Amino acid sequence: MDNVRIGMVGYKFMGKAHSNAYRALPMFFPQVKRPEMKAICGRDPQGVEQARAQFGWESAETDWRNLIERDDIDLIDINAPSDAHKEIALAAAAAGKHIFCEKPLALSYADSVEMLQAAEKAGVKHMVGFNYRFAPAVHLAKKLVSEGRIGTINHFRGLFLQDWIVDPSFPLVWRLQKEIAGSGAHGDIGAHVIDMARFLVGEFDEVIGMSETFVKDRPLPSSMTGLSAKGDMNAPRGPVTVDDATLFLARFKSGALGSIEATRFAPGHRCTNSFEINGSKGSIKFDFERVNELEVYFTDDADDVQGFRRVLTTDPSHAYMDAWWPPGHTIGYEHTFTHEVHELMLAIAEDRQPVPNFADGVQCQAVLEAVEMSIQERRWVSLSELR
Amino acid sequence: MDNVRIGMVGYKFMGKAHSNAYRALPMFFPQVKRPEMKAICGRDPQGVEQARAQFGWESAETDWRNLIERDDIDLIDINAPSDAHKEIALAAAAAGKHIFCEKPLALSYADSVEMLQAAEKAGVKHMVGFNYRFAPAVHLAKKLVSEGRIGTINHFRGLFLQDWIVDPSFPLVWRLQKEIAGSGAHGDIGAHVIDMARFLVGEFDEVIGMSETFVKDRPLPSSMTGLSAKGDMNAPRGPVTVDDATLFLARFKSGALGSIEATRFAPGHRCTNSFEINGSKGSIKFDFERVNELEVYFTDDADDVQGFRRVLTTDPSHAYMDAWWPPGHTIGYEHTFTHEVHELMLAIAEDRQPVPNFADGVQCQAVLEAVEMSIQERRWVSLSELR
Amino acid sequence: MDNVRIGMVGYKFMGKAHSNAYRALPMFFPQVKRPEMKAICGRDPQGVEQARAQFGWESAETDWRNLIERDDIDLIDINAPSDAHKEIALAAAAAGKHIFCEKPLALSYADSVEMLQAAEKAGVKHMVGFNYRFAPAVHLAKKLVSEGRIGTINHFRGLFLQDWIVDPSFPLVWRLQKEIAGSGAHGDIGAHVIDMARFLVGEFDEVIGMSETFVKDRPLPSSMTGLSAKGDMNAPRGPVTVDDATLFLARFKSGALGSIEATRFAPGHRCTNSFEINGSKGSIKFDFERVNELEVYFTDDADDVQGFRRVLTTDPSHAYMDAWWPPGHTIGYEHTFTHEVHELMLAIAEDRQPVPNFADGVQCQAVLEAVEMSIQERRWVSLSELR
Amino acid sequence: MDNVRIGMVGYKFMGKAHSNAYRALPMFFPQVKRPEMKAICGRDPQGVEQARAQFGWESAETDWRNLIERDDIDLIDINAPSDAHKEIALAAAAAGKHIFCEKPLALSYADSVEMLQAAEKAGVKHMVGFNYRFAPAVHLAKKLVSEGRIGTINHFRGLFLQDWIVDPSFPLVWRLQKEIAGSGAHGDIGAHVIDMARFLVGEFDEVIGMSETFVKDRPLPSSMTGLSAKGDMNAPRGPVTVDDATLFLARFKSGALGSIEATRFAPGHRCTNSFEINGSKGSIKFDFERVNELEVYFTDDADDVQGFRRVLTTDPSHAYMDAWWPPGHTIGYEHTFTHEVHELMLAIAEDRQPVPNFADGVQCQAVLEAVEMSIQERRWVSLSELR
Repeated sequence: MDNVRIGMVGYKFMGKAHSNAYRALPMFFPQVKRPEMKAICGRDPQGVEQARAQFGWESAETDWRNLIERDDIDLIDINAPSDAHKEIALAAAAAGKHIFCEKPLALSYADSVEMLQAAEKAGVKHMVGFNYRFAPAVHLAKKLVSEGRIGTINHFRGLFLQDWIVDPSFPLVWRLQKEIAGSGAHGDIGAHVIDMARFLVGEFDEVIGMSETFVKDRPLPSSMTGLSAKGDMNAPRGPVTVDDATLFLARFKSGALGSIEATRFAPGHRCTNSFEINGSKGSIKFDFERVNELEVYFTDDADDVQGFRRVLTTDPSHAYMDAWWPPGHTIGYEHTFTHEVHELMLAIAEDRQPVPNFADGVQCQAVLEAVEMSIQERRWVSLSELR
Repeated sequence: MDNVRIGMVGYKFMGKAHSNAYRALPMFFPQVKRPEMKAICGRDPQGVEQARAQFGWESAETDWRNLIERDDIDLIDINAPSDAHKEIALAAAAAGKHIFCEKPLALSYADSVEMLQAAEKAGVKHMVGFNYRFAPAVHLAKKLVSEGRIGTINHFRGLFLQDWIVDPSFPLVWRLQKEIAGSGAHGDIGAHVIDMARFLVGEFDEVIGMSETFVKDRPLPSSMTGLSAKGDMNAPRGPVTVDDATLFLARFKSGALGSIEATRFAPGHRCTNSFEINGSKGSIKFDFERVNELEVYFTDDADDVQGFRRVLTTDPSHAYMDAWWPPGHTIGYEHTFTHEVHELMLAIAEDRQPVPNFADGVQCQAVLEAVEMSIQERRWVSLSELR
Repeated sequence: MDNVRIGMVGYKFMGKAHSNAYRALPMFFPQVKRPEMKAICGRDPQGVEQARAQFGWESAETDWRNLIERDDIDLIDINAPSDAHKEIALAAAAAGKHIFCEKPLALSYADSVEMLQAAEKAGVKHMVGFNYRFAPAVHLAKKLVSEGRIGTINHFRGLFLQDWIVDPSFPLVWRLQKEIAGSGAHGDIGAHVIDMARFLVGEFDEVIGMSETFVKDRPLPSSMTGLSAKGDMNAPRGPVTVDDATLFLARFKSGALGSIEATRFAPGHRCTNSFEINGSKGSIKFDFERVNELEVYFTDDADDVQGFRRVLTTDPSHAYMDAWWPPGHTIGYEHTFTHEVHELMLAIAEDRQPVPNFADGVQCQAVLEAVEMSIQERRWVSLSELR
Repeated sequence: MDNVRIGMVGYKFMGKAHSNAYRALPMFFPQVKRPEMKAICGRDPQGVEQARAQFGWESAETDWRNLIERDDIDLIDINAPSDAHKEIALAAAAAGKHIFCEKPLALSYADSVEMLQAAEKAGVKHMVGFNYRFAPAVHLAKKLVSEGRIGTINHFRGLFLQDWIVDPSFPLVWRLQKEIAGSGAHGDIGAHVIDMARFLVGEFDEVIGMSETFVKDRPLPSSMTGLSAKGDMNAPRGPVTVDDATLFLARFKSGALGSIEATRFAPGHRCTNSFEINGSKGSIKFDFERVNELEVYFTDDADDVQGFRRVLTTDPSHAYMDAWWPPGHTIGYEHTFTHEVHELMLAIAEDRQPVPNFADGVQCQAVLEAVEMSIQERRWVSLSELR
């Protein structure tokens, strides 16, 4: 069984998460193909070299074009800022490399379609980084839905609540600039909820949304430093060009009703990626802050003991868990990436597309964009208008 | 201090709740005016007599017109089905009686305005039955908001989830018929969320909604029996003419964003009347199924111990609680009515309008109707279009 | 069906709770005998008259002997401080009155036995006030145990945690004085846990305990004012003569292991009367601060959805709940007394002893005293040493 | 900065956890000494070779004596079954190797003392594997206690509840055999609670306990396979020679009261390692099943918003967390080992003993043994009787 030789573009938050997953995979899932950490790539020579050494990559590159040209690389992992995804992906596809791209796939629906078509034309494997699908609790939710154990779905209620920019002195980092990030809460975290909804409920039919930027301008940061930068209220300021919060209503093709919200202005919520599904035979609740738990309710439980069950999804009966620790010994955020990479390696071995792949990225982008259109035009927008 | 002599129309679910409140008030709040339970009124002589005896009313009437004519009655309590509210209220006002009317105030915004004008013209006291405001936890939420302790409100997220009609064999009771109930989940339970939002966040500016009736027809009930009837799938069937679920997005005049949902199709939720508010300095969460609790988060708590506090609102520092039991000794649903009647008696004694009153009923009706219009016309509707 | 004419001794916290129960019973449980609130008795004429008027009793007495002599009284309700229980109960029995006595039944095991024997000899009905049994959630726990749904019980873990005297300036109220209260946390709140254990698991076999008085002396109160008095650190002080906390281990006759703790020094716990039971087929958890909930776990649930269910015990399938409100509409502390009085009235009608009765009070007293003996003698004490 | 060259004895559950920690350390904590995974050792050549390849060790050994003789090894990591700890540790000390030994340190107090003395005499670093101390939430608890933020501690209540042997068909694995495991729930999981109590409250003064073996004999396993083996009720059976559950009461030297329980018979509890501490100024609650959370209560919070705070211990202000992911992105069980190894590497670099070390292992053993003595002799046992 050959290894899969990885070249990765990006070395910040997601670069660290992916590196950790590549390192963990062979130890916990020795039966799948082994990712070989060939090269890490970033523009700043010192930064990328430090990341190389720390994360355990064999070599470093400062130009992603060089990375793609290397013939000892099978797969390009793209976790650079969102505005760089498309160009790299197209080049990688042209070079016949498999592609693992972080979400959002691109800054526009059109771009994402172009990326999908390029990958399909090239005949390479392509995956998009909706890691939250890979929490065992979410896999259990999927299983319950698929097996009909909660019946026909009537409601999906999804929230992604954060609070890292509530303080108006928080600086204007790249995630708050439209030209780099594409959008704010909507594309960054709302995208995860949209993907979760598609995974569990199916395709969207039509949407209508609203959004707001509560803090209109912020101090310019001295340097781009991800999520944890500290601001200075006396510093020069620039306009925030993305949404702080976006909410929308939706109808799914199945007839289910959806309500989805993404905000970075919810104090006390560090990372509440949560959903509830109501079906004709039961309900399911999930909150990522308690990633090892799924709450499940069945209408056919005995009359006197009906209630939401708090299922600790750490048993061997839960996806991926027999690879880790005994029941009750919890896992965390980073494990969703290990499971994601597991799927990627398995798909390559089985010569099939991984799930979720660029087609899922495209559908997510369609919903993101339909919501934006609905906000600009203040009307319901059908997904068919984009496709 | 004179007693307030009550005549009540209606003797089912709400009639029982109000009766209990009138009975409890003098024992737990002896310092306010005493409601005198003069007469209970209903169309069925046997039913109303049984209720009279059980609930402890002095006399019974079978025609509300007689009740209003009696000169030993100071206040008319209207908790008959919604389609009867207006006619009774207008007559009561004309007779110079104070009015305590259950929500929804009327079947239309126009009717509710007419009721408010009649009451104002008659110079009587008028109150509308938004009892959930009177949970001590909700009063605490109001206090925190009013004192600026959670800062400027950016988000209001309100849900009222029930599950009593998920079973398609549940019969076609009056609450599922538009001509009697006005609307379904929207007016019945969504109205409570709308009132909560107005109480805590202020007036709505514009709304857009969607709704659905998941089960289109149901067995006809042999008799009208409230919430707990059992159905028969082989019985003759009739169409459900109200919504099973209604969701809407909103902007408040303050600029806050709102998301509100009412559904009777959420298995596992017997009575989840819940909300979350996010402000610039903190957050508040409430769920009526845990009526004695409020969750509160403050951004200015010490860095290492920030977290939602589960406040048990049973301390003497919490509204109404020194009248009941020692800290930690909980109260329940019915107590919200006792507190509501407390406000009613106090307002009469102080010769001021109780809060919430018909003006609040009107505003709630305006939002309900704007949402309905937004659904029919598939567009954002400004509240100014109705006013 | 004759009414039961009540004479009640005591008018503070418990007097209020009992009065409320007598008032509520006929409205919510009209099918049982009606308690007639004949006379309330207390030593302070003004205080008792105020209570009479507020709580709705027909008459007031200032000497319990007069009360017992009255021939228009069928039942004596004793909720005076614990040191008065015995004398009143013996006199009531001698006069042929039924007796409803608050817990702890007496200040000693011997006294409680004397009380039981007197009641038995007199042939009257006798009940002891372990009201927490009457939470519907606790009744559900009992049902699950009785029906074998959690199998053989291996563990009982009971806690009653309060925090009302953590502040050392809290004054030396009667509940902190051994000669009046008998004991501190042990007899006041530990007694409830012991009764719960007996109700659910069965009789105790042997025990060993420890106790502590963390604050040795406190300011003398200007007047005895129950649980909510405020202290003055400069006031004259007196010694606390009861335990602030008592813990013990136990073996039940069934072989189950028990761990029981009562403390008034647990900040954040206003009234955490909680237990967990582990059986061979499942587990049960209860916390009185969430009186409408029972958590239940079954080992035979499907492998992938095993978890504690949060059962909201407000459905018609739960004890007493069809008399109150629709599902999800919660009840509180006071309702446990209404249910308790329901059992009392029902037992009188059916000419049987109510449950729990003086025999239960005696058994509880035996355990309390065995624990005290085990603390003094620093050894395991078998219940058989007392009986 | 030299690496620390590790030789590890044991390759099952703990061997995997330690290996993962050694692998993760340099990536997430690059500033400390790097553990070099030199050799893994186990008796079964095939098993150990598979573990070597999977976990990423350079070489494998089948005799621990060889391992200790190797001069390219600085530190011996002992996570073989408990009965092997002493001999290996003594040999490692004699060879001048640092020692990292899993808990329980030994099968007896005397043995543990001998191990400590040997390590001290050899002048090597020694650490004992109480990994739960290293949850950031537990470190926060320690910080709050140390800084006096919850005042004087009055109560410690610790539970370790599991359910993996409730089924009587579960086989007689080594953990159920006294000669290998030393004890059952008591030494295996109770030891963790004892260490937690010592860490947070201080030394024990006296104890009294009880224990039980609910299932007296079990099917013999075909092979020893850790926690997840499946049994056969028709197989030959052998006696269970350890406790299924052990409970004890304790007094700490500080005067605080303790209640500690360890059981493997609590259905629904996969790994509930929990404690609550009540101090004069606040309380702290922890449950390992929610390892990223600590609940904290302060008596000096404003009157109307007192309540337990659910602190998500994933902020940069929480121990170790700035090395991992942004706030709200949780960690799991395995991270406690990474932090533990971080302390080990740091202590070696700083030429000081790591904490917890063999002295902590000895004290834990003393408490375990005092409890056992108290059970056998049915009396309170002072720790001074052992020391």
